[in-house]
Amino acid sequence: MNSINLKEKFNVITRYWDPKIIGELNGQYVKIAKLKGEFVWHHHDEEDELFMVIRGSLVIKTEHGGVKLEEGEMVIIPRGVEHMPVAEQEVEVLMFEPKGTINTGSLENEKTIHQVEKI
Amino acid sequence: MNSINLKEKFNVITRYWDPKIIGELNGQYVKIAKLKGEFVWHHHDEEDELFMVIRGSLVIKTEHGGVKLEEGEMVIIPRGVEHMPVAEQEVEVLMFEPKGTINTGSLENEKTIHQVEKI
Repeated sequence: MNSINLKEKFNVITRYWDPKIIGELNGQYVKIAKLKGEFVWHHHDEEDELFMVIRGSLVIKTEHGGVKLEEGEMVIIPRGVEHMPVAEQEVEVLMFEPKGTINTGSLENEKTIHQVEKI
Repeated sequence: MNSINLKEKFNVITRYWDPKIIGELNGQYVKIAKLKGEFVWHHHDEEDELFMVIRGSLVIKTEHGGVKLEEGEMVIIPRGVEHMPVAEQEVEVLMFEPKGTINTGSLENEKTIHQVEKI
């Protein structure tokens, strides 16, 4: 039962769009990632997804419009909603989602990561 | 699908040990609370519980020893583990836990809150 230091964990991450697992509870993962640029439009059939900005700012475009998040802000994207994270500058993000969640949701492409590393 | 600003949400809270729900996803709640002083020893039979310090510092005493959390640090207390949060000074904390989680776990006393308000 150790404390988890976000800054130390982010220091381990060297690539964008490469989420890492930093915690697990109640069938959910706590993940972090560094993002920069545009991701891909996708949705998750069965999973709601929380994004919290730890450093920087992030826009999450959705089929219903965009949400801009600054440091200390979060949003919950409900299952089924098409969305695409966009970061003009590097942003550090924490995510909370069910263990089975795939980063590109129902879409399978070169950005899809099936085996997410624990750090 | 609105952004949730932690600072604004904490500004609504006027009492210690009075958690508020700020988000819901996948059968879990995101809660925040201001803590100061000692809580009570308790455990949760079926729920793992995440504590993240947003501002200040927090000690979580457990049956296996204590964990000290500073800003930007978190810990996951597994189900069944006796624990007691202790805050020397006011601390702002974010929690992730299943919807059914009661703040005092298996213990029922004057600190127990059954109806947690959404803010």
